[in-house]
Amino acid sequence: MNSTTISHDLDDGVLTVTLDRPEALNSFTPAMADELEQTFREVNDDDSVRAIIVTGAGKAFCAGMDLTAEGNVFGLEESQDPGLAEMDDLEDPALHGIRDTGGRVTLAIHDCRKPVIAAINGAAVGIGATMTLAMDARLVSTKARVGFVFGRLGIVPEAASSWFLPRIVGLPTALDLILSAEILDPDAAVAAGVATGPHESDDLLDAARELADRWTKGRSPVAVALARQMLRRNAAEDHPIEAHRIDSLAMFHTSIGDGKEGVAAFLDKRDPQFTGRASQMPAFYDEWIARGES
Amino acid sequence: MNSTTISHDLDDGVLTVTLDRPEALNSFTPAMADELEQTFREVNDDDSVRAIIVTGAGKAFCAGMDLTAEGNVFGLEESQDPGLAEMDDLEDPALHGIRDTGGRVTLAIHDCRKPVIAAINGAAVGIGATMTLAMDARLVSTKARVGFVFGRLGIVPEAASSWFLPRIVGLPTALDLILSAEILDPDAAVAAGVATGPHESDDLLDAARELADRWTKGRSPVAVALARQMLRRNAAEDHPIEAHRIDSLAMFHTSIGDGKEGVAAFLDKRDPQFTGRASQMPAFYDEWIARGES
Amino acid sequence: MNSTTISHDLDDGVLTVTLDRPEALNSFTPAMADELEQTFREVNDDDSVRAIIVTGAGKAFCAGMDLTAEGNVFGLEESQDPGLAEMDDLEDPALHGIRDTGGRVTLAIHDCRKPVIAAINGAAVGIGATMTLAMDARLVSTKARVGFVFGRLGIVPEAASSWFLPRIVGLPTALDLILSAEILDPDAAVAAGVATGPHESDDLLDAARELADRWTKGRSPVAVALARQMLRRNAAEDHPIEAHRIDSLAMFHTSIGDGKEGVAAFLDKRDPQFTGRASQMPAFYDEWIARGES
Repeated sequence: MNSTTISHDLDDGVLTVTLDRPEALNSFTPAMADELEQTFREVNDDDSVRAIIVTGAGKAFCAGMDLTAEGNVFGLEESQDPGLAEMDDLEDPALHGIRDTGGRVTLAIHDCRKPVIAAINGAAVGIGATMTLAMDARLVSTKARVGFVFGRLGIVPEAASSWFLPRIVGLPTALDLILSAEILDPDAAVAAGVATGPHESDDLLDAARELADRWTKGRSPVAVALARQMLRRNAAEDHPIEAHRIDSLAMFHTSIGDGKEGVAAFLDKRDPQFTGRASQMPAFYDEWIARGES
Repeated sequence: MNSTTISHDLDDGVLTVTLDRPEALNSFTPAMADELEQTFREVNDDDSVRAIIVTGAGKAFCAGMDLTAEGNVFGLEESQDPGLAEMDDLEDPALHGIRDTGGRVTLAIHDCRKPVIAAINGAAVGIGATMTLAMDARLVSTKARVGFVFGRLGIVPEAASSWFLPRIVGLPTALDLILSAEILDPDAAVAAGVATGPHESDDLLDAARELADRWTKGRSPVAVALARQMLRRNAAEDHPIEAHRIDSLAMFHTSIGDGKEGVAAFLDKRDPQFTGRASQMPAFYDEWIARGES
Repeated sequence: MNSTTISHDLDDGVLTVTLDRPEALNSFTPAMADELEQTFREVNDDDSVRAIIVTGAGKAFCAGMDLTAEGNVFGLEESQDPGLAEMDDLEDPALHGIRDTGGRVTLAIHDCRKPVIAAINGAAVGIGATMTLAMDARLVSTKARVGFVFGRLGIVPEAASSWFLPRIVGLPTALDLILSAEILDPDAAVAAGVATGPHESDDLLDAARELADRWTKGRSPVAVALARQMLRRNAAEDHPIEAHRIDSLAMFHTSIGDGKEGVAAFLDKRDPQFTGRASQMPAFYDEWIARGES
């Protein structure tokens, strides 16, 4: 990938994505949205990657939208994405396919087949805070600041954060964080349930990598992808029967795949050698993931 | 409004609604349901109000249904509300449009464009407890008691509390609170996650006002209303794409409204002067809020 | 019931179900799935039972699937259940009606009219851990171990656990528990919010019974069943209006049933004598419970 706003480093299966505009506190631009979305989409078919860490270059994690960008300080863009056709239901005539760029990124993170861990090394404000809510864990350093500051600017939380935040901290804390629009220091972020830590700055990336390894090293990438999506999608359904349907399909497919080796290795008291690849998910997977997006 | 069971006091944008039948421990009646629902509906178009505090006159907050009221101790009434037509799906022939009055109040709170804060100054029992679950925060004084006592009377939790309570405390605690039907002292209410505090009685209203100011003073009333509804509605959807659709609409409308001033003021390092009014929400708002209620 | 894998003991309205294959650490088999599902379905019509405790014989609670069972170590079975017809939507041609047996058990627990309490006396691993997530409380002894170990075997969490677990511990902890696949000691299980306790082994069943009595002794079995289902079903709906519809129906039916006695007893300052029976639920109940399962 030819990136201008982020950089990629792959080390032993863990891809570190660095928001890399340190001169601008890694502030978010349409190009960064494109490159992040592309990263989280392409990594699904890249079997050399088992987990992703997102961090920031320099002092900040991401200081929010680039307010110096002409004409696009709100992260909006025109889109012809047919999958968003239903947006028209509520649209007034002045609005045709306008789309929040932050949401493009968080939906790609939500759909990702690999766990994504935020290593928040400094200021994470606005989209810098909300993009991490779609990730699977948020680790803060002692220098992190987390601010859902939209209310101070007369705007609203975006990047589908209103869907993610209550799942992370519960509705009352989510309301308080968004309506207060205050900037949390690391202890406050941990106390609110937004993040874990704090870690010393020098230890932050090691802690993120340790977590990535704990979740994915030596594991079946197919089973990891399925479990991650099951927790995200099934719990949002109205009835547990939906989970049961997916469970049955997912267990069947792993039972004829890596599960066969997993049980054999367990009975033999040896480490399993899984051969499944996340680039080749079971037949039902893509249709399931696409559900609800049409 | 010509109220007989509640009183209203507006001070610098904060409307204090006092349940005002102290001789009856502010117990709930059909008239109180009407007056509360009317208050939470009418305040949407009253731009002089930016937040609401609900408290009780005298010793109690609200001691539950008025059990001395003839023929209506369960808070039921006949309704011809066409929006509830789907209730008939499950009705037996004996039941035509019977409706829980507590739910009329909590649905109006849920739909409100302004944050609503419960200042629980004494006993909050039955509907006195469940009505607060639809509010955005619950502050308890050291004299508060909170009791979901329905099970002791052989009846069920109402006022849509089964939708709100698990969002506040999680499912296991919600099950325990409802099945135990015990009356919580202030420390137990805080430990369960039902409320914050406890505050000394003399400090309770000040604390509620401080929170109301922190959430709404100097803020865009349009952005506050949108954010409040986004957290309540988007998180209940099956897929984050629903949040993305609303985000895109809400960010577009604030970007051409108070957001323009908010960003300008931020860049100028001055306080913003927002001019949006909650009485004039974007075109998509009413249709969005009405969704799911038909 | 003619059971071979579990045993039943009814004492003063509390049915203790003991997973009873101690020679195999109570590991789960198709026969155990059948007998557990049958128990949780039949108890709905047995008015001598007001609550259920599930525990394990000997050292373990349930050590997971019986990996020595030929051909069925993944808990899958063929099913012609027409209620699962929609599974075919996502099926590939190789899969016809394959169904997770653990889910059959947890869906029966979810639908149960009586509270179900897990008394986890030892190892609860795999289906031994996930089956408890559908119950209303999980008490651990100091000897308990709780492990969502699926990832170690290259398989996925089942028994609709992806629907239940985030409701119990929130999404971030659920992701960590499932992806880490670690075995929790009692303190870790309590810290994660999975269980309460720990209790000394000798006190575990007493604590479970005390909770069962606190929730159900002297209560209306109809109101208990309704409240339990309202918290489980209404909170999963997209909008609180759905809770309002059920509230109105449930309050109406209890108001002409045990609620009449409950209020009379309260006004007379005496204990109520409820006569409602969970075997005879209101007319709307069965249709409501069946919703979403078709």
